[in-house]
Amino acid sequence: MADGSEKNAVVSNKKVIFKDYVSGFPKESDMAVTVDENLKLKVAGDSKGILVKNLYLSCDPYMRLLMTNRSSEIFGPYTPGAVRMPGLTAYGGFYEVCAPKKGEYVFVSAASGAVGQLVGQFAKLMGCYVVGSAGTQDKVELLKNKFGFDDAFNYKEEPDLNAALKRYFPEGIDIYFENVGGKMLDAVILNMRVHGCIAVCGMISQYNRDQPEGVHNLMSIVYKRIRIEGFATVDYYPQYSKFLDFILPYIREGKVKYVEDIVEGLENGPAAIIGLFSGRNVGKQVVVIAPQ
Amino acid sequence: MADGSEKNAVVSNKKVIFKDYVSGFPKESDMAVTVDENLKLKVAGDSKGILVKNLYLSCDPYMRLLMTNRSSEIFGPYTPGAVRMPGLTAYGGFYEVCAPKKGEYVFVSAASGAVGQLVGQFAKLMGCYVVGSAGTQDKVELLKNKFGFDDAFNYKEEPDLNAALKRYFPEGIDIYFENVGGKMLDAVILNMRVHGCIAVCGMISQYNRDQPEGVHNLMSIVYKRIRIEGFATVDYYPQYSKFLDFILPYIREGKVKYVEDIVEGLENGPAAIIGLFSGRNVGKQVVVIAPQ
Repeated sequence: MADGSEKNAVVSNKKVIFKDYVSGFPKESDMAVTVDENLKLKVAGDSKGILVKNLYLSCDPYMRLLMTNRSSEIFGPYTPGAVRMPGLTAYGGFYEVCAPKKGEYVFVSAASGAVGQLVGQFAKLMGCYVVGSAGTQDKVELLKNKFGFDDAFNYKEEPDLNAALKRYFPEGIDIYFENVGGKMLDAVILNMRVHGCIAVCGMISQYNRDQPEGVHNLMSIVYKRIRIEGFATVDYYPQYSKFLDFILPYIREGKVKYVEDIVEGLENGPAAIIGLFSGRNVGKQVVVIAPQ
Repeated sequence: MADGSEKNAVVSNKKVIFKDYVSGFPKESDMAVTVDENLKLKVAGDSKGILVKNLYLSCDPYMRLLMTNRSSEIFGPYTPGAVRMPGLTAYGGFYEVCAPKKGEYVFVSAASGAVGQLVGQFAKLMGCYVVGSAGTQDKVELLKNKFGFDDAFNYKEEPDLNAALKRYFPEGIDIYFENVGGKMLDAVILNMRVHGCIAVCGMISQYNRDQPEGVHNLMSIVYKRIRIEGFATVDYYPQYSKFLDFILPYIREGKVKYVEDIVEGLENGPAAIIGLFSGRNVGKQVVVIAPQ
């Protein structure tokens, strides 16, 4: 806190600690909520630093990748970093990677999630036809009724994803915004149109596997001259102010909506993170740490 | 033949017939060499057509894809089409898809093949570091000694492709020109550099499989923001004259070399096609049908 009112105050600080690197699905028992007592709210005498009070904690699927000791070219070892921006991810991934055109057929997986809900709305703003997949009927309704997707389906109720996609995209898919990987990716590749684009934001279905599923239909990359491209929000940081200029008017006018799933108390943080991987959250998962 | 000397002549015509769609590796017994007798070399009276005598037959891996009844967005059902251009394929795939820069690390699989040998030489012309893989020691020597690759290896002698690639590319791979797919692709993905590019020309290791191998390491597409892009020569036909302007001076000056594997007689066509998939050919496979 920067107002100086609690200068030199002594406080206790709650925190979530990972006991070790995580294997398979994360469990609440992988984490412990502990309390540091007698913390002095004081910066070093010669420091120009300020004290900051965290009010919210963001929970995102990518955090699972930081719970392993595998190296990654995007993230270092797990040290809380800046909170990432689902909006900037959706913006960079959809507009920069996909380069969408009016009338194109767009499919978004994990579409009710923090990024997916925005991608679908951006696609509608572009005049695209957009279908989303999600894991519950409630989420499917949210996509159609709140976020304006043209259609949506519950992938858990589709025994044949290839057949489902053929039903929703009889003309094929121009743009796939990939959040899940695995079987869905394999089915999507079969349904891409010539010169289609797959923007790979994440592959949440694979994060908890020691050995990722095999994807078998990659030969269609040649048949259909498909472009598959991974991206990371960090690459779009220089465009952040341009993104704000784009998104803020839409939010003010109510043309872009956003749903957050808020739980209260840091002690509920572990369950919130784990819920991401069972699909329990609806929209962006946020933990309120302290009242404002 | 267009010189009119054999106008209205009666000839016999040898041809290779596929008995049915092919499953698994093609066999000579899938084909039959037959002869049409008493063919009149005559165009219809009101036709502006000309008679053409075929002198050479081109054998290329993509032809395997046409021997099945699966649909393809590039090729129609198997009817002899125009002979494709490995040079234009190498040109379009390397320069247009990969957008190479001087000093980049380039890997080419099936590197002694019709397309691969040119890609490697184009990479050297760009000032890249280029390594190729092939399936015999003779081909490896050809790559290093004739085509000027910086290095080359026999993939059949590498029990661990990931380890082999780490040895040849300790700094990682910027550009992979993909001709084989399967296990090689899986290993390459692990060795790509951030923002690397994989240009997918073909996946010859998969053409004879009913169920393609699974590729497991696609999550690295996100970690490393990799672009994987399929392409087809047909997309570069409009650039054919530009390609000729580029390549002909290099060929005249001996700066680009080309090796063909020539067999004589249409009756040897079936064996020539099959040889592509066992790696028997060295360089572009051509069948001489008739003396000039």
